[in-house]
Amino acid sequence: MEKDIFKGFKEYSVAEFFKKNRQMLGFSGKIRSLTTIVHEYVTNSLDACGEAGIHPEIEVWVDEIEKNEKYLVRVRDNGPGIPEKHLGKALGMMLAGTKFHRYVQQRGQQGIGAAGCTMYSLVTTGQPVKVVSKHGGVKLSCSLGIDFKANQPVLSERQVEECPPEEHGLDVEGVFGDTKYENSLQGVREYLKRTAIVNPHAAIIFNSPEKERMEYPKSVEELPERATEVKPHPLGIRPNDLLDLAGKVKGYTKLSALLQNEFTRVSLNKVKELQDLLPDVDLGMNPAKLSWGDAEKIVGAFGKVKWIAPATDSVIPIGKEQVEKSLRNILNPELVYVTGRPPKIYRGGIPFIVEVGIAYGGDIKSEGKGGVVMRFANRAPLLFDTGGCAITQTAKNVDWKRYEIKNFDEEPVAILVNVASVHIPYTSAGKQSIASEDDVVEEIRNAMMEAGRHVQKHLSGKRREREKSTKRKAIMRYVGQLSSDMAELAGNAEAEALKSRLTGMIEERFE
Amino acid sequence: MEKDIFKGFKEYSVAEFFKKNRQMLGFSGKIRSLTTIVHEYVTNSLDACGEAGIHPEIEVWVDEIEKNEKYLVRVRDNGPGIPEKHLGKALGMMLAGTKFHRYVQQRGQQGIGAAGCTMYSLVTTGQPVKVVSKHGGVKLSCSLGIDFKANQPVLSERQVEECPPEEHGLDVEGVFGDTKYENSLQGVREYLKRTAIVNPHAAIIFNSPEKERMEYPKSVEELPERATEVKPHPLGIRPNDLLDLAGKVKGYTKLSALLQNEFTRVSLNKVKELQDLLPDVDLGMNPAKLSWGDAEKIVGAFGKVKWIAPATDSVIPIGKEQVEKSLRNILNPELVYVTGRPPKIYRGGIPFIVEVGIAYGGDIKSEGKGGVVMRFANRAPLLFDTGGCAITQTAKNVDWKRYEIKNFDEEPVAILVNVASVHIPYTSAGKQSIASEDDVVEEIRNAMMEAGRHVQKHLSGKRREREKSTKRKAIMRYVGQLSSDMAELAGNAEAEALKSRLTGMIEERFE
Repeated sequence: MEKDIFKGFKEYSVAEFFKKNRQMLGFSGKIRSLTTIVHEYVTNSLDACGEAGIHPEIEVWVDEIEKNEKYLVRVRDNGPGIPEKHLGKALGMMLAGTKFHRYVQQRGQQGIGAAGCTMYSLVTTGQPVKVVSKHGGVKLSCSLGIDFKANQPVLSERQVEECPPEEHGLDVEGVFGDTKYENSLQGVREYLKRTAIVNPHAAIIFNSPEKERMEYPKSVEELPERATEVKPHPLGIRPNDLLDLAGKVKGYTKLSALLQNEFTRVSLNKVKELQDLLPDVDLGMNPAKLSWGDAEKIVGAFGKVKWIAPATDSVIPIGKEQVEKSLRNILNPELVYVTGRPPKIYRGGIPFIVEVGIAYGGDIKSEGKGGVVMRFANRAPLLFDTGGCAITQTAKNVDWKRYEIKNFDEEPVAILVNVASVHIPYTSAGKQSIASEDDVVEEIRNAMMEAGRHVQKHLSGKRREREKSTKRKAIMRYVGQLSSDMAELAGNAEAEALKSRLTGMIEERFE
Repeated sequence: MEKDIFKGFKEYSVAEFFKKNRQMLGFSGKIRSLTTIVHEYVTNSLDACGEAGIHPEIEVWVDEIEKNEKYLVRVRDNGPGIPEKHLGKALGMMLAGTKFHRYVQQRGQQGIGAAGCTMYSLVTTGQPVKVVSKHGGVKLSCSLGIDFKANQPVLSERQVEECPPEEHGLDVEGVFGDTKYENSLQGVREYLKRTAIVNPHAAIIFNSPEKERMEYPKSVEELPERATEVKPHPLGIRPNDLLDLAGKVKGYTKLSALLQNEFTRVSLNKVKELQDLLPDVDLGMNPAKLSWGDAEKIVGAFGKVKWIAPATDSVIPIGKEQVEKSLRNILNPELVYVTGRPPKIYRGGIPFIVEVGIAYGGDIKSEGKGGVVMRFANRAPLLFDTGGCAITQTAKNVDWKRYEIKNFDEEPVAILVNVASVHIPYTSAGKQSIASEDDVVEEIRNAMMEAGRHVQKHLSGKRREREKSTKRKAIMRYVGQLSSDMAELAGNAEAEALKSRLTGMIEERFE
């Protein structure tokens, strides 16, 4: 009996694992699954264009194959394309990619995105995805599947042609079951609209299953700054990260040198200070010999030293003007205000920036109810897990009445919040909501209040204008009667002249 | 420039992936992380004892190493132990195990559980876990870590001794950072109490960091039925599952034979019926040649045939008596009622069973507020993601007032709901809440209403008793006065005799 227990002991591949646990990749619920697919492809397109310094032009098609069940999704970009050497792995192998190991402000999941979509297509319709990649003068067309047992790409129907080197881009198309298209706040259309709002340098076109064509042309010329890899700050890491770094980065014979070169704000003087705090740890040791215990002590000492805050140039905001232009472009509001606040630090060592845009009036209400909160992390829209998100909660807790917004949920007001950081504090695996880190929440609140004050100015201006005009009208109603009464009382005055003088006085008063 | 983009293209291991995405394994938040660790070990112990036919005796220790930060967790069982050949992989390799491939009613995650704990220990404290396994006359002690790059176990400090073959079991101990012990509804203590409630055949002891010792002795002698692998029902599968089956199961030259032998309820006649519905598909084909298109057609035809419902003996309830005994044991209530309803089917092909136990009065309220809902899936307590769970929502929607429970949240009432199935419809990766499948929700509601009616009987009995006794007392108050008044009016009657006759009449009436 006991021997049988281990009979079935097996190893299985990560592709098999995610095939069984596809919810972990955002494939849960038909609507969310469709949005996830578009999100993964569009994110890859934006990131690839960003890295290659190209103005993104992205066109998305969603076609109904079977209502509320099966849809074709196609995403075509003008990015750098993918060379054949990497194409299979990029789209047909889990846990392969360029994004995983870097400490850089990024959008995407980590090397699963597009391969996850291929998996979903195979699992729900049995079809591989079709890819056309133009890169370096070569146009490669093929179908891509996954060998789940081996977690390896399966390439078929390969066709190679020459193409002009100035033509480049990726064009992916797949048919996905267990999906549903809905024109809701969590659907593809809203996802793309919001993506366009925070990427005004990109041109995005969406062809919906209802044969609508939505065009979001680019509204600014400048490309966003490129995200760069940054060195960690001593207050932003844990013992485990220090050990990882000591094991990964080669070429140092002394830990002290590694600390000075691989961290930001660690000077020779700071190393000395640390050494004084650590009589049992020799910072001159070989990094390869660093033990957990020592790493823990060093991180403990990090907490006791006074550090200059990390440089914040690693955080790349969308930009005040950019957000303003695209809010005007897309929502056509009567008022827009966007904060341009400096970056802040959370947990003492992790820089981040919060941008809040607020728009009032115009087409906002026609988009649904009032009080829209659009959440973004590193320019990627967050559409799910709304309730637990620090952005939503903070927006709820702001006393909007103070800013003349009497009923936030009913008035034509939209807030956009983008949190940018190398390390966004997500609440969970789904990466759809931001955790309530104190420093982050405080900054979101302050930015919202700043935005609120501007709306207040606008609205109280409007209110005073309205009140004035009401008063004036009320007084004006008496002018006729008053002038003729006065003319009569005075016996000889001319009613008309009197009326015109009175009117003049009132006009002057209420100008 | 473009060439640089792919410079960082890398593959990485599943262990590295989960190290970065530990929330996916339930390691999010300090309290939840600690509960997850205990859950993974205890689940493995219960499953191992179950498979070996052993009455589980499990002892759990949680010791504070650093308050609200670092705790030692030790779990010792009397299960079969793990032979050295499998020990490393079971505790130090992701995606290895016995549970992944089987279609069987099970508790645990899929081959990540214990290895995930080892990962968490390494990442938060740098320490491997310590293991003592007694199996087949050998006692093996060692430390176990993970080589993250290779996703391979690292075994050290290995010691092997002989031991009497009748001694067996596993004893795992680790130190885990980023954890917090709290005596709350989501903490280890509540987790173990609830585990004890639904596993009355197991003896569970918990030694808390506050040096309390909670003992939950076994309250029933019979071991639960063993979960067995079952064949799928045609209505419970999708094209992808059919293709998997056709690819995996060897030895069939004809698809029709595979259908008859690898599915439940598929007879020769049914195959003929299917063939008539599928003029373009030859069910006599070699299963290896099954295409997605044909699989899709076959699954479509499955939906058009009238099937006998699947056998439901694969679903193993805890049992009416068992739940009743343990609710009495642990909550000491004045009333307990447990439903003993037959299994049902959802989506036409997946059997499941719902057990609802209700307890009223006794120690329930002392455990916190009233209106406790204890959720379980295949006997494993669900403590997180409460809001979205079909069990919680259904409990909220039941009109408890009809059952004399005026304010569910305030009264001393506890409901236990266990959903058992080979395929629990979880809402998300965390496996902490059950999706609102119509058939499942309906059955939960019916079971709750059945339980409600029994509480109503009890409570309305109590209420009537109370009302009677109030009335009787009220009437009795008049008896003395009435008898002496009557004696006086009658002139000659004896007041005492009259009073005793009146009292007799009233007593009789209110008996």
